[in-house]
Amino acid sequence: MAFDLADRGAIAGVGYTEFSKNSGVSTLTLALRAIMAALDDAGLPPNRLDGIATHRVGDSIPSAVVAQAVGIRDLSYFVDQFGGGGSSHAVVGQAALAVASGVADYVVCYRAINARSEFRMGGTARPAVDSVETQYQAPYGYVAPPQQYAMVAQAYMHRYGITPRHLAAVAMTQRRHAEKNARALMRAPMSYDDYLASRMVADPFRLLDCCLETDGAVAILVCSPERARDLRQPPVLVRAAAWGGGQTLFSNRQPPPGTSSAAVMVPRLYKKAGLGPADVDVAMIYDCFTAAVLIQLEDYGFCAKGEGGDFVLSGATALGGSLPVNTHGGFLSEGYVHGWNHIAEAVQQLRGAAGDRQVPGAKIALSTGAPGYVGGVTSALLLRGT
Amino acid sequence: MAFDLADRGAIAGVGYTEFSKNSGVSTLTLALRAIMAALDDAGLPPNRLDGIATHRVGDSIPSAVVAQAVGIRDLSYFVDQFGGGGSSHAVVGQAALAVASGVADYVVCYRAINARSEFRMGGTARPAVDSVETQYQAPYGYVAPPQQYAMVAQAYMHRYGITPRHLAAVAMTQRRHAEKNARALMRAPMSYDDYLASRMVADPFRLLDCCLETDGAVAILVCSPERARDLRQPPVLVRAAAWGGGQTLFSNRQPPPGTSSAAVMVPRLYKKAGLGPADVDVAMIYDCFTAAVLIQLEDYGFCAKGEGGDFVLSGATALGGSLPVNTHGGFLSEGYVHGWNHIAEAVQQLRGAAGDRQVPGAKIALSTGAPGYVGGVTSALLLRGT
Repeated sequence: MAFDLADRGAIAGVGYTEFSKNSGVSTLTLALRAIMAALDDAGLPPNRLDGIATHRVGDSIPSAVVAQAVGIRDLSYFVDQFGGGGSSHAVVGQAALAVASGVADYVVCYRAINARSEFRMGGTARPAVDSVETQYQAPYGYVAPPQQYAMVAQAYMHRYGITPRHLAAVAMTQRRHAEKNARALMRAPMSYDDYLASRMVADPFRLLDCCLETDGAVAILVCSPERARDLRQPPVLVRAAAWGGGQTLFSNRQPPPGTSSAAVMVPRLYKKAGLGPADVDVAMIYDCFTAAVLIQLEDYGFCAKGEGGDFVLSGATALGGSLPVNTHGGFLSEGYVHGWNHIAEAVQQLRGAAGDRQVPGAKIALSTGAPGYVGGVTSALLLRGT
Repeated sequence: MAFDLADRGAIAGVGYTEFSKNSGVSTLTLALRAIMAALDDAGLPPNRLDGIATHRVGDSIPSAVVAQAVGIRDLSYFVDQFGGGGSSHAVVGQAALAVASGVADYVVCYRAINARSEFRMGGTARPAVDSVETQYQAPYGYVAPPQQYAMVAQAYMHRYGITPRHLAAVAMTQRRHAEKNARALMRAPMSYDDYLASRMVADPFRLLDCCLETDGAVAILVCSPERARDLRQPPVLVRAAAWGGGQTLFSNRQPPPGTSSAAVMVPRLYKKAGLGPADVDVAMIYDCFTAAVLIQLEDYGFCAKGEGGDFVLSGATALGGSLPVNTHGGFLSEGYVHGWNHIAEAVQQLRGAAGDRQVPGAKIALSTGAPGYVGGVTSALLLRGT
């Protein structure tokens, strides 16, 4: 009896601001720049927009204000979700629901942050993710994402014999991808010696295991496939969207060490899509830290549990490999827009518009949000080219 | 081509905590109590829940934490929306989209606040609604909702010749309804002299023009009509949900004085429902302040612009009138759960379960969120009994 969402939402436009360490402008301006770029990409006049969707953790402008600044005169749908990277892909899923059901015609989704110059994650001066853990952890100085994920990574590495060499392979592979991406902030070649020489931030994470902190915005225009076909770009269809649970201190569903909360959601994602891991041509895996990529490669079914490190070392995730991952360089090397430059890169790949980093013939792309270790939720998208 | 949402989501359960001025417990406990009450009302075991949805303004627990505390093991859908009363009804709309599309089977929606004992709206010690206006208004002492709505009311009353007698009629009508409601916090009879004697808070609003500040929670269980029919209560169908824009300082769409932002949304709501104002049997109108009820009665098409005051004075909105409004007593007399006790009362009326305050034969109910004067958004539901 349920309506099937598969292929009933489409991504018709993608917009970026410059990625930098100091944008010099407000998150409102960043949002507007990315949105206007996405509309220009699609060839849609701003006065056709009737929906807006974002997520934030108190670090960005309310979406209702952005809607007014864009000039939306009859706002027919809005999302302004509390949440970090785990919510990123859910926002596009929400927009797909809205256009598939006729609630709105054109929903622009975006994330706009000054994550280096204004609001760095994990500080104590202002609350970041609105987490119940903070009250128990902050007195011990445990407040920053590298600390949180370091605990996860230690358990994972201990259980499965993962070494720094494996972590470095993620960072080095993505840096090689970034060398082909003019938008990337980090394009200088990275050797294993470079990796080892980078300072330890939170054991086992060196600086080069950690995502960048970036000022920037990305916008994604969502409409029905029928409407998308009348616009400038080949539509990219939302084959499936999935929302998932995650962990907090109160979680009664702690996955075993080395497995993320996303693992529980993944079967639903593939089932909704009628697809499996073998159908995925290119993947954007949430890479807040190197170890998170390994764990997700396993949890999304691309290799067996514990084999993510060897999978990456084998070259499988490099351009030319069996499953190119984070072809833009990811959060580690392109920039960190909290999940959103992953969605954008997946779209570029499915359009065949990724230039020197194009995966030939890419038809199905996976893009993932944060895997649920912090903030209590996760989300992901399977996208299909046309 | 779009999927029609009409009657594809159902409300199968309603749960309340006690309403009070000092709950003595956390918002997490309040949320859990209301959710368990809604599940008990529906006859659904907690382990069947797979979705959760709320909105908040930094005054309540993240929905992901509540999901874990309830024991949801595979969270298939989540909403944790930034926003005040304008977002309240949108949350149920989101849940209807989720169940209609098979994203989740059973989504519990709720709002849990200690709005008197812990987090009073409009203070300056902590940010309430995350509003861009605050930086411009707070230096002048303009921070509280009664002040914000007083400006609206002054313009409305000036333009249309509305008097204190009209405002009082709203408060007195709802108090008479509350006399029939054991849950209501304010049940003592109110005379016009009582009204006039109550202290001026923000001209034209006396204390009795203002909603209560309440500790409490309300939960609403949403599932497909098919699933709802297998549960304990007669399903109440979500005939239509609408999301709308509102105003901030940056708004380029200021409605004329005396008209709310909701007016722009209303035609879409009725069109989606295939219904008009004449079809509505009972209405829960967002009554943060008396004047807001008058403006919305006009904007939702129940009387002509400027005639809301006379409409209420005529007795039309009283039990026994042509359109009973806020039969529970509303935020003015039952309690203030930020939009949610309105939805709950609409459901009770459509079930025929409203006891002494039942509107005979009620089949269609309107429930409205805050009309968009603050926070930039609005939302509403048209519900249908079965």
